[in-house]
Amino acid sequence: MNLKNELSTRAALFNKQLVSYMNEKKPKLLYDASWHLPRSGGKRLRPCLAMLSCESVSDDVDVVMPFAVALELVHNFTLVHDDIMDKANLRRNVPTVHTKYGEPTAIMAGDLLFAKAFEAMHDLAGDLRVFKEVEYSLVKCIEDICEGQQLDMEFEKRKLVSEDEYFDMIHKKTAVLFSCAAKGGCLIGHGTVEEVKALADFGLFLGLAFQIWDDYLDLSSSETVLGKDIGNDIRNGKKTLIAVHALEHADKNGKKLLEKIFGNPDAKETDIKQILTVFRENGSIDYAKQTSMKYCKKAKKVLEVLRDSQVKDILNAFADYSIEREK
Amino acid sequence: MNLKNELSTRAALFNKQLVSYMNEKKPKLLYDASWHLPRSGGKRLRPCLAMLSCESVSDDVDVVMPFAVALELVHNFTLVHDDIMDKANLRRNVPTVHTKYGEPTAIMAGDLLFAKAFEAMHDLAGDLRVFKEVEYSLVKCIEDICEGQQLDMEFEKRKLVSEDEYFDMIHKKTAVLFSCAAKGGCLIGHGTVEEVKALADFGLFLGLAFQIWDDYLDLSSSETVLGKDIGNDIRNGKKTLIAVHALEHADKNGKKLLEKIFGNPDAKETDIKQILTVFRENGSIDYAKQTSMKYCKKAKKVLEVLRDSQVKDILNAFADYSIEREK
Repeated sequence: MNLKNELSTRAALFNKQLVSYMNEKKPKLLYDASWHLPRSGGKRLRPCLAMLSCESVSDDVDVVMPFAVALELVHNFTLVHDDIMDKANLRRNVPTVHTKYGEPTAIMAGDLLFAKAFEAMHDLAGDLRVFKEVEYSLVKCIEDICEGQQLDMEFEKRKLVSEDEYFDMIHKKTAVLFSCAAKGGCLIGHGTVEEVKALADFGLFLGLAFQIWDDYLDLSSSETVLGKDIGNDIRNGKKTLIAVHALEHADKNGKKLLEKIFGNPDAKETDIKQILTVFRENGSIDYAKQTSMKYCKKAKKVLEVLRDSQVKDILNAFADYSIEREK
Repeated sequence: MNLKNELSTRAALFNKQLVSYMNEKKPKLLYDASWHLPRSGGKRLRPCLAMLSCESVSDDVDVVMPFAVALELVHNFTLVHDDIMDKANLRRNVPTVHTKYGEPTAIMAGDLLFAKAFEAMHDLAGDLRVFKEVEYSLVKCIEDICEGQQLDMEFEKRKLVSEDEYFDMIHKKTAVLFSCAAKGGCLIGHGTVEEVKALADFGLFLGLAFQIWDDYLDLSSSETVLGKDIGNDIRNGKKTLIAVHALEHADKNGKKLLEKIFGNPDAKETDIKQILTVFRENGSIDYAKQTSMKYCKKAKKVLEVLRDSQVKDILNAFADYSIEREK
């Protein structure tokens, strides 16, 4: 079994479905802006997770597709609005929606994607109680994502953030949507109560592992692999697990350096390097790596409830992938 | 029967329900920002319409409340985002959300209200098919509102807008939510197919009458009554029915003045007065008034399908109110 093939087969299947939802109505500018990000690709991890989760308990994967579309549209809607808030210029190597279409149209494009997600949900066939339960879970998930994004913004302005607060933030901002994808896929596939619980937990742990591994990757890989600007996160005072750990555990000298440089928009290249040294010598980078691996392990552990199958193997490999990827 | 009393009784009943949804969670800033506009009042016309519509076919009005809450939250979410796009400073005589809490938090507050609306929908009891149908109608309505707001913004930048285009815009931006309110209220009250159709049409005509009467009011009443700045709409080139009519039907001299002044941000007080004269002498102001009255009449006509009751009288008075109010 080759995970990359398994995921890309499903992503291709998903993309066909997604395209059927990307209608071209008027006003043209609004629809162009709305489909700009979904069209620019992405790994479709959430739809794939929902599909795999459904397949793990059912032979029919087509039935989960409207939900998979809804997940991806919700994910894209939050990215469009986040990019406005963060004043980001690029996403998936193309200009962000507000950069290309202006802020007013980008706000509306996000709103339209939000609505389109719920329109897609209405194509779910079968038991209306399942539709209602999955939709409710998606609604609550969006509320969590809003809270998580607000926390993320507020944390950047704060000197200290505790590890508990950090986990609350990434739980809401990232992990709940993974959990919703896995849980919803299983509900739509009519999994048992135990299977639903297991897959909801799997998604949650997977999401946490993914997010923390992202934090780790940003600071451990060379810039060429990742294509991100490490320095900016340090200049913005971004509260990653690594930063949170260092701010709490660094020695007196390390804390002094953090106080001076971390969150300082004018920090120079040499300052950034000093902070990286503090992170490394304090064991903060390694701590993030270990924590991510811990959640990967937890994710695989809860999968044991599922009956053995090729899909279960793929889900296990998916968990491993969360802490192996290099970008 | 006193319409004002009937509406304010229902608005008070509604406000009690609304408050029960306005929970105070963390992050505090996000929740403060989200409830800022719903808390600042407003006439609650859409909830009242949904309640009356339900009452017109059923004895149980409590059952419609979650939908009434959803309507008001959707309305408020669109206002929060519209105010960012329009750079508006005041709404209901208080600072707009982005003015008070900043744009990033205001974008998120709007998103949260959107999600909260759908959370409220899930409290609808009874037949799940009714829940699904009403919710779908609300989703499609939000898509229309996005399109309508985009059209409104694009029209401001255009020289000419046809009457058909104007009607398409206000249909989407204003009338569909009134229609959704009336239709949904009737569906939840288990009205017949005929009653549902009648009330959907009623809401649509009422919404059109309301919006056009707003256009008319802006230009006919003295500023003290309305508390709005007439000049700004003319400086911004806002395509009201009055402007659309004048741009098409004014004589050569009038068209010259419109070309020079309408949509000119630097227009002076005397220029504005000249445009008002063009509007008046061309019969454009009167045309808007007559058109609004026409839709009020249409709204009352479709009500004839309903059985006679006090609620039917209130709905008729509601239609009259749409073209009698002075603010």
